[in-house]
Amino acid sequence: MRLHRLKRLFVGTPLPTAQQRHERLGKATALAVFASDPLSSVAYATEEILFVLVLAGSAALSYSLPIGIGIAALILIVISSYRQTIRAYPQGGGAYIVAKDNLGVFPSLVAAAALLIDYVLTVAVSVAAGVAAVTSAVPELFPYRTWLCVVAVVGVAVTNLRGVRESGQIFAAPTYLFVVSVLGMVAWGVGGAALGMLPAKPYEPHAPGLEGIGLFLFLRAFSAGCTALTGVEAVSDGVPAFKPPEAHNARIVMAWLGAISVTMFLGITYLAYDLGIVPGGNETVVSKIARQLFGTGPLYFELQAVTMLILLLAANTSFADFPRLSFFLARDRFIPRQFGTQGDRLVFSNGIVILAGLASVLLVVFQGDTHALLPLYAIGVFVSFTVSQSSMVRRWLRLRETGWWWRVWLNGIGAFVTGVVLLTLAVTKFTEGAWIVVLLIPTLVAAFLTVRRHYEEVAAQLSLEGFEPPPPMTNTVLVLVGDIHRGVIKAIQYAQSLSPTAKAVFVEIDPERTRKLEEKWGKWGMGVPLIVLSSPYRSLLGPLLEYIDHLQKDDENHVVTIVLPEFIPARWWQLGLHNQTALLIKGAMLFRKNVTVTDVPYHLKH
Amino acid sequence: MRLHRLKRLFVGTPLPTAQQRHERLGKATALAVFASDPLSSVAYATEEILFVLVLAGSAALSYSLPIGIGIAALILIVISSYRQTIRAYPQGGGAYIVAKDNLGVFPSLVAAAALLIDYVLTVAVSVAAGVAAVTSAVPELFPYRTWLCVVAVVGVAVTNLRGVRESGQIFAAPTYLFVVSVLGMVAWGVGGAALGMLPAKPYEPHAPGLEGIGLFLFLRAFSAGCTALTGVEAVSDGVPAFKPPEAHNARIVMAWLGAISVTMFLGITYLAYDLGIVPGGNETVVSKIARQLFGTGPLYFELQAVTMLILLLAANTSFADFPRLSFFLARDRFIPRQFGTQGDRLVFSNGIVILAGLASVLLVVFQGDTHALLPLYAIGVFVSFTVSQSSMVRRWLRLRETGWWWRVWLNGIGAFVTGVVLLTLAVTKFTEGAWIVVLLIPTLVAAFLTVRRHYEEVAAQLSLEGFEPPPPMTNTVLVLVGDIHRGVIKAIQYAQSLSPTAKAVFVEIDPERTRKLEEKWGKWGMGVPLIVLSSPYRSLLGPLLEYIDHLQKDDENHVVTIVLPEFIPARWWQLGLHNQTALLIKGAMLFRKNVTVTDVPYHLKH
Repeated sequence: MRLHRLKRLFVGTPLPTAQQRHERLGKATALAVFASDPLSSVAYATEEILFVLVLAGSAALSYSLPIGIGIAALILIVISSYRQTIRAYPQGGGAYIVAKDNLGVFPSLVAAAALLIDYVLTVAVSVAAGVAAVTSAVPELFPYRTWLCVVAVVGVAVTNLRGVRESGQIFAAPTYLFVVSVLGMVAWGVGGAALGMLPAKPYEPHAPGLEGIGLFLFLRAFSAGCTALTGVEAVSDGVPAFKPPEAHNARIVMAWLGAISVTMFLGITYLAYDLGIVPGGNETVVSKIARQLFGTGPLYFELQAVTMLILLLAANTSFADFPRLSFFLARDRFIPRQFGTQGDRLVFSNGIVILAGLASVLLVVFQGDTHALLPLYAIGVFVSFTVSQSSMVRRWLRLRETGWWWRVWLNGIGAFVTGVVLLTLAVTKFTEGAWIVVLLIPTLVAAFLTVRRHYEEVAAQLSLEGFEPPPPMTNTVLVLVGDIHRGVIKAIQYAQSLSPTAKAVFVEIDPERTRKLEEKWGKWGMGVPLIVLSSPYRSLLGPLLEYIDHLQKDDENHVVTIVLPEFIPARWWQLGLHNQTALLIKGAMLFRKNVTVTDVPYHLKH
Repeated sequence: MRLHRLKRLFVGTPLPTAQQRHERLGKATALAVFASDPLSSVAYATEEILFVLVLAGSAALSYSLPIGIGIAALILIVISSYRQTIRAYPQGGGAYIVAKDNLGVFPSLVAAAALLIDYVLTVAVSVAAGVAAVTSAVPELFPYRTWLCVVAVVGVAVTNLRGVRESGQIFAAPTYLFVVSVLGMVAWGVGGAALGMLPAKPYEPHAPGLEGIGLFLFLRAFSAGCTALTGVEAVSDGVPAFKPPEAHNARIVMAWLGAISVTMFLGITYLAYDLGIVPGGNETVVSKIARQLFGTGPLYFELQAVTMLILLLAANTSFADFPRLSFFLARDRFIPRQFGTQGDRLVFSNGIVILAGLASVLLVVFQGDTHALLPLYAIGVFVSFTVSQSSMVRRWLRLRETGWWWRVWLNGIGAFVTGVVLLTLAVTKFTEGAWIVVLLIPTLVAAFLTVRRHYEEVAAQLSLEGFEPPPPMTNTVLVLVGDIHRGVIKAIQYAQSLSPTAKAVFVEIDPERTRKLEEKWGKWGMGVPLIVLSSPYRSLLGPLLEYIDHLQKDDENHVVTIVLPEFIPARWWQLGLHNQTALLIKGAMLFRKNVTVTDVPYHLKH
C-alpha cells in the first residue's frame, strides 16, 4: 500500500482510456518534444569533428568547415526525404512500419533493431553530454559524473511515466531558450567578428587537397559529425501524437527542424573555427566558445544550464520513441507482449522502464564519457534512414501516384547518400566500438524472429480448431501436513470446502512424530482421513510422487490438487525462515501434468 | 530429470535411514578425518611466525624457537582439557553444547558464532595453503591460484555430499602419508645435522631479552603461530561419529593427535631454524626446507603433493563440523530449519553447500592468499576454547564428581591460558583483519536470537491451545480468462471439478475483444457463466479486487479461489514470454486474506 502511494506521488493518478484522444501535441510543443534530439546534437557534433581532426595536428582543424557544410547538406536531404514519408504515412511512418509495408519483414526488423539500439544510445549520449555541460561549468562535479548521469536518466523516466502531454509542457520552455541562446550566441559572435569588435583568431588555413590529413581521417571526422543527424526521424515516427491535421502539422515541424538545426550546427562550427577553439581537457567546445564570447559570467552559465536541459530533452525523445516502437514490435509479436500494454497514465510503462535501465547500465559501464559512447552512436539511425528511404522508393515505384517520378528521385538520393554514409560510419568507427552495434543488430533480428516463431507455435497449439474438449476431470484434493497447528487447520478447512472427499497426507520420516500427529488428529482432523506415507530415504517428495502416480494410474483425466499451508510473514527477512517445503513441492510439481499446487495463506502477525 | 541423474553421479544413490548406525568411524579413520586440521597447520604455522619475526630483521628469526615451544605447551594444555570434555560429553561436546549446558544460552551462542566463522576460515585457509604447496612446486600455476582454490573447495564439498564414511575412506591414506613424510623429513634433517652430514647454517643467535624486537612484535609472532591450534576441538565435537565405545576411542585419538601434532610442529620449526630459512617469495617455508634437504627431486614433490592433500583433508574437517553445529543450532531454532534436515546420503547437505559457498567467496575476495586470510583465523577457535573450558570448570564445581578438584584445575588453567591468548590475538591482529571477526561474532549472535524469537512467536500464534476452529468455509471459484483457447478450457474444466458453481471472470479493456469472447463463449464456455468487469483505467487488478471485495463483504469465512491457466514452456528462455498476468495477480493476492490463487499448468510442446 505504501509502494502504491509512492507510485501515485511520482507518476500521478490513473487516466481513463476515454481521455486518450486529448493527449495530443500542438506544433510548438511537438517541436520541443521531437526536435530536441537533432537540435541538442550541436552540443557535441562539432566537438566530435574537431576531436578527430586534431589527431592530424591543429592545422587540420580548419577542415571542420567543409565537413560541417557537407553534414548540413546531408541534414537537408534527410529532412526532405522524411517529409515525403510523413505525407504517405500520416498514421506514423517509422522505418519499421514503412519497411514492413514496402520491403517485407526482414528489412523492417533490421531497421527496428537498429533503432532500438540507437534510442538507448540517444539517452546515454545525451545525458552524458548534458552532464558534461554541467561539469564544464562546475569542474568540482566532474568526479561524480556517472552518478549525475544515472540520476538524470531516472528523472526523465519518471517524467515520462506521468504521460506524454505533461512531458511536453514540462519540456517546452528549455527548447526555445536553447534555440534563442545558441542563435543569439552565433549572431553575437559572427556579428562581432564581422564588425571587428571581437578578437578573431581563426585556425591556420589548411593546405589545399587532403595530403596533410589523409582521406581516412577526413572520413572519420565526417562520420563523427554525423551524430548531428540522430533523431530527425522521430517526427515521422510520432505523427499520431500531433494535433489534427496530423500529417500537415508534422511536415511543418519537420521543415522548422531542418532550418533551425542547420543554422545552429553551422553557426557553432563556424564560431569554433573563427575563435580558434582546440578541443580537449574536461571542458566542452561549446563551453569554450561561450567563455570566450561572454566570459565566465551569467550569460555563460545560462547557456550551459540550457544546454544541459536540451540534452535531457533529447534523452526524453527516446522515451517517446522506444516504447512506441516496442509497442509495434509487441503488437506484431516480435517481442514479449508486455510491451504492448499501456500503463495507467496512458503511456507504455514497460518500455520506459527498460529503456531507462539499459541506458543507465551503458552510462555506468562507460563511466558517463560522451567520447567513449559516441562511436557506437549514429550507425543505428543511418541503418534506419537507408531502409526507410529505400522503402519509400519502392512505394513510389509501386503506386505511381501523381509526381511519383520526382519523389522517386528525392527518396532515391536520400537512400543512396545515407547508405554511403552508413558504410563510411561502419568502416571508420568499427574498431572504436561500432563493431558492437554491427554484431548486435543481427542478434536482435534473430531474437525477434525466434520470439515470433514461438508465439506462432503456441497459438497453433492452443487453437480450438478441430478441438474436442476432454470429458470432465476427476479431482482429488490432498492436504500435505507435517504437523498440526492453526495454519494447517485453515488448509484442511479449505480443502474440505473444495471437496468432501479431501484427504490429508503425511510423509513419515520419524515414527515418533507420526504417533504424536495421529494422537492429535482425532481431535483436530475434522473428519478428514490421514494417510501416512513412509519414507525410508527421508525424502518428502519421493513417497508423495509415488502416491500421486498411484492415484492417477488408471485415469488420464484425474487431476490431483495439493493444498499447502503457506506462511505469509510480516517482514521480508522472515521469508527465508518459512515455506521451504512449499517451494520444494511447487518446484517438483511444475513439470508434472495434471498436478496443481494451491497455497492457503496464513498471515503471521510479527 | 537430467539434473537428477547428474546429482546421482556425483553424490551417489540415496541411503535409507536404517543404515545410519553403520556410518561410524574406526580410530585410525577418525584420526584421518578429525586430526588433519591441527596436523596440517604445520604447513603454515611456522611460516607465519617467521613472517612476523622477519619484520625485525633476520636476526630476530631465532625467536621462533621459544615461541614454538610456547605454542607446543599450549597445544598440550588444550588437548588435556578437551580429553576431560570428551569424558563428560560422550554424546558430543562441542563448545556450543557444553556452554549451553553449564553457562547458559548467551555464552553458547558466542561460541557457536565464533566456531561457524572459524569453520569457514578453516576451509579457506587450508585450501589456500594447499594450493600454495602446489604453486611452490609448480610456479607456473601461481597465476591461476584463485581458480584452483575454488575447484578444490567444490571437490571437497562433493566428496562430503556423498556421506561421512566414504569420505573417511577416501581421505585416510594421505593423512598417514603426510605424517610419515614430515616425521621422516624431520628425522633426516635433525639426524643429518647431528651427525654433521648436512650443512647446517642456523640463524644468528639473538640478543638476550627482547630489546632487539619489542614485546608487541614478539606477541604478534606468537599469535600468528596460534593457528597451529585450530581444529583440535573437532574430536570432542564429533564423538558420536566414532565406533563405540565412543568416548574411550575419542580420548585415545585426542592423545595421539596431541603427540603427533607437537612433534611435527616443533620439528619443522627447528629445521627452519637449523637450515636458516628466511620466509618470502612465492614459495612456502616447508617447500624451502624440503628443497634444501632433498633437492628438487621425487622426495620433494612427494612431500608437496602430500601437504596439499592433508590441507584438503583439513578443509574436509570443517565439512563435518559446520553442518553438525548448524544442525544443533537449527534444532534449537537459532537458524532456519532447513539446516536441521539430512539429505538422502545421511549428511546435512544444506550446511555443506553453504560452507562451500562462503569459503569460495572468501577465497575469491582474498585471491587465494594465505597470508591475507590468516589474521582473521584462530580468533574464533580461541573464543570457543575459552568458553568451553570455562563451562567445564563450572560443571565440575556444580557436580563435584570424584576427582573434581584436579579437574577444576586442569580446565581452569586451560580456560585462563586460552583466554589470555584470545586477548593477545584480538589486540595484535586487530588492524590486520581480526576486527572483521570481532564485529561479526556479536552480529551473528544477534541474528541467532532474532530468528529464535521469531520462531517462538510463530509457534505461539499457531498454537492450538484455546483455539476454536472457525465454521466451515464458503468457497467461490473464479477462472480468470483473457481469451479462449485450449489452456483456458483446461482451466475452466479444472474449476468445474472443484465447484459446480464456478464462474469465469473477464476484465474488459477493449469492448471489441469482449464481443469476440462472448461470441465464442456459447460454444466453448461449457455452461460456466461469464462475468465481464469493465476497466476504465485499463487495470486488470482494480476491477478484480473490487469484485472479490463485493463477494466477500458479508462473510468472514468466504474464501475466493482464483484459477489461472499457466503456460509451462518447453525451454527456459520462453519463461519471459508468458504468464506475466499470472505473476501480477499472484503478487497482488499474496497479502490478501482469504484469497487463494491456483495455477492450472498447460504444458507447451516447443
